Amino acid sequence: MSLTLYDMDLSGNCYKVRLLSALLGVPLTIVPVDLAAGDHLRPPIIDLNPFGELPVLQDGDVVLRDSQAILVYIARKWGGEAWLPTDPAGLAHVCEWLMVAENEIARGPNDCRLYEKFGDAVDIDLARAKTVRILDLMESRLRISSWLVLERPTVADVACMPYVALIHEGGLTLRGHPSVAAWVDRVKALPGFAGMPGL
Amino acid sequence: MSLTLYDMDLSGNCYKVRLLSALLGVPLTIVPVDLAAGDHLRPPIIDLNPFGELPVLQDGDVVLRDSQAILVYIARKWGGEAWLPTDPAGLAHVCEWLMVAENEIARGPNDCRLYEKFGDAVDIDLARAKTVRILDLMESRLRISSWLVLERPTVADVACMPYVALIHEGGLTLRGHPSVAAWVDRVKALPGFAGMPGL
Repeated sequence: MSLTLYDMDLSGNCYKVRLLSALLGVPLTIVPVDLAAGDHLRPPIIDLNPFGELPVLQDGDVVLRDSQAILVYIARKWGGEAWLPTDPAGLAHVCEWLMVAENEIARGPNDCRLYEKFGDAVDIDLARAKTVRILDLMESRLRISSWLVLERPTVADVACMPYVALIHEGGLTLRGHPSVAAWVDRVKALPGFAGMPGL
Repeated sequence: MSLTLYDMDLSGNCYKVRLLSALLGVPLTIVPVDLAAGDHLRPPIIDLNPFGELPVLQDGDVVLRDSQAILVYIARKWGGEAWLPTDPAGLAHVCEWLMVAENEIARGPNDCRLYEKFGDAVDIDLARAKTVRILDLMESRLRISSWLVLERPTVADVACMPYVALIHEGGLTLRGHPSVAAWVDRVKALPGFAGMPGL
């Protein structure tokens, strides 16, 4: 049974899954879903994910929603301890940044992009303020470390990079955050790296 | 070295940590932080957590922010596989709901409570709509299962319960979601359960 990703090519959340799979050399069967046509709100997607969102991953009987949870699954099943340590402190520190991807980056850089690129209803002033705030916090961390957690790339970096790297599509720039920009380049230089449109 | 929680008694996020510690019988040293006085934005808190938010957990050299990440740490260190399974599917399914706590519940029930109880600036119509949506999704899950993941309580339930149970402080009710209400009662009946103001 092949590993199937229900996917949208312009989604940074779907891209995270494609990126980790590429870095780990795990083959994915990609099934494109037409969001404009509302196919995410109809079977089979809505039966696989009642939240009606992408990405959705299917691995035999295991069906998963949420890009961060999917990264955890792939890393745990095919990445060993390298990409997702399971000691208490290591796992928790990775989770801190998975939560940043789910919260601060989603409501900052991702919302700015939804507004500028897709015309979504967004409180853009709030989204821009949240973007600057999370970039400042990431800059502080990445000024003293090459990676978000530990001294190696983990799923934390895979989860946080895409919407930060796509920030120009949200009408902003990384010019004031050189350590963040250097970290994006470091992720792009990883063996097996795969890009996405706009990156 | 004792396990120290920098805490605010009315915070549902801090309460999650106190609740899991009570359920596992892990003693916590509680250090109350005066948010009204801005103490979360001054040392020692801001040095421990640059995000300037509570809760913060300190366990010797390990310092953690974000309530969901702290639950992962405590469960992994003191809870064995019971509260946080580490097989790929089990861990990922728990993470799906930790992300719901960080995203849908934070922007739904939690935002409604911030607006009604604390007078925070919130798009209340949006927060109410998000609350109904996530309660509907939780109702569907909890109609067919006693717990959010697997057939036993995990950190997923601990992470998602508090702001759902406090929904009356956000001006809403669980009357239309009986399976969610029954699940809240189920969590409250767990051996070792500890409450918080308003619950």
